[in-house]
Formats: sequence, C-alpha cells, structure tokens
Amino acid sequence: MTEKINLEPIGRVHAQEGSFYLKVFEPYREALAGLEEFSHALVFWWAHGCADPAERETLQVDLPYAAGLRKGVFACRAQQRPNPLALTTCYIIEVDVEKGIVVVPWIDALDGTPLLDLKPFIPTSDRPRDFHVAPWLADWPDWMEDAAAYFEEHAVDFGD
Amino acid sequence: MTEKINLEPIGRVHAQEGSFYLKVFEPYREALAGLEEFSHALVFWWAHGCADPAERETLQVDLPYAAGLRKGVFACRAQQRPNPLALTTCYIIEVDVEKGIVVVPWIDALDGTPLLDLKPFIPTSDRPRDFHVAPWLADWPDWMEDAAAYFEEHAVDFGD
Repeated sequence: MTEKINLEPIGRVHAQEGSFYLKVFEPYREALAGLEEFSHALVFWWAHGCADPAERETLQVDLPYAAGLRKGVFACRAQQRPNPLALTTCYIIEVDVEKGIVVVPWIDALDGTPLLDLKPFIPTSDRPRDFHVAPWLADWPDWMEDAAAYFEEHAVDFGD
Repeated sequence: MTEKINLEPIGRVHAQEGSFYLKVFEPYREALAGLEEFSHALVFWWAHGCADPAERETLQVDLPYAAGLRKGVFACRAQQRPNPLALTTCYIIEVDVEKGIVVVPWIDALDGTPLLDLKPFIPTSDRPRDFHVAPWLADWPDWMEDAAAYFEEHAVDFGD
C-alpha cells in the first residue's frame, strides 16, 4: 500500500447540449495517432464530483434505479468509490489529432470533467459473447446500440 | 490541470501459474457485495512497471504485434502511457466478500500489481453489437471467448 499513484488530466470532456467531444491537451495529442481506425474508444475519466474524502469512503449505495436494493460500489457503476475512476465506451465520430479532438455522440460525464486515458475498444479483449448480469438489470438491453431507446422509454432515474 | 488526482490501491492481483485471483484489502471488502451476480468484472489496475516519469512520457510505440507500425498510445493498449491505467475484462469464477477474493481464470497483470477499481460488466454500456478495428488487428477474434485459442495458435509476441 506504499505506492504513490498520481494521475494527471490528459484533457477534458466537452459536454453540452448537442455537442459532445473530448479535448486532449496539446502535449498529449500525438498519442491519438491511429485512434481514428477504431469504431469505439474506452474513455477513462475522473469523477471529480466524487473526489472528496467522504465520497471516497462510500462502500455501499442504494441503487438509484432499483428501489430498495443496496449493493457494494464494486458491484455497480456508482461514481462514489474509493478511486472515483469512470469508464465510458464511446462510438468515435471523428478524430482530429492536430486539434486534439475526439467527437463522440454522447458521454455520461459533466462538461469540464478531467480525462485520464483513452484506449481503443478491442473486441478480443473487451467483448464477451456470453454473459449474465444481476437481476436488478435483467431487463436492460444486451447491446450498447439499444441503450438510448431503452432509457428513453423507461426514464430511469440515475440520481445525478 | 490543477486537480490533484491521487489513487490508492484497493487490493492486489495474485497471478501465479494456475492460480489467478484478485485480493481486495480488508477495509474495502464490503464494496464487493453483489459482484457475484455478474458474469464479468472490469478490473482496473495500475501498470506499476510503467509508472516512472520516462515511461509516462511515451506517446507513441512500435506495435509489438504488428511489425513496422508505430501508433499513439491512445490508439493501442500499450502499458506505457501518461496515466498507466490498465483494464482487463475478467470472467468471474467466484467472489468471497468476507475474504476479499475474486477468482478469475486469468489476468494479463503481474503478480502483486495494485488494483484500483472493480466494476460489473454491463452489456448495455460496454458491449457494442457493431464495431470495427484497425487493420493491424483485423484478424483478431470478435469475442473474448475466442481469444485464448487464437493467441495459442498465432503465438503473438506481446513484447513483455
């Protein structure tokens, strides 16, 4: 437990109505070369709204979308957690290496959120054919592409 | 760029021939409650072998499994990157909340690697139906389940 683990933002999320993109700071832009060859990126961001010590001591939460259920933060996607890292798999609309911009359709991060890392989505590592999920999300779609329509219809209250 | 972003290990990877599991430190164990309901976990770990400043300045790498190609670190899964975060999607064999143990079939992290976070794999967020990848991994399987057989046959040199 003696490691000092320090991260630095490599960019920021731009998230405004109808305009979502990732802006990578100038010194890191050449690291984007080749990302345009992939359909999806794994976007790692810092849930800075949950970065104070009290939030980081949260180990269990009442699930906002499953009334009456309380689960560990390692068993749900709550932003409150010991290390408030967040991950969003984003479809890539466009990459501009020179400007440091990755345009995405949408991301569940607030405007100004610090970016920590980007990785290409590689099905061989990231995409199981067979899976099961907890009963509290048994009705959720099996595919990302069906998420927006599902949540529009079901109006899930994510509590944030 | 003024955020101070500090992480603390929540456990360690145990990776020895024929025995792979994640060991969560005692103070964090109750955060595992409910993870056993999922087939897969997203395992976030710190690539501590790449944590020194020189490694973190690496922005492009020669791909070890695609001779002659050089790409940005945000366009491949090299451990050298500004924030050496790594992610492995692992099938969950067993969760023991009390002992803080998550048994997995395998993980591409060295024994003793610091764990940073665990999240359940949720297909609605994490699993695209349609995708494409860069030409340099066009032959790789579309599914995690087919990875082991593929790499056994093709003996890819990952350079580590």
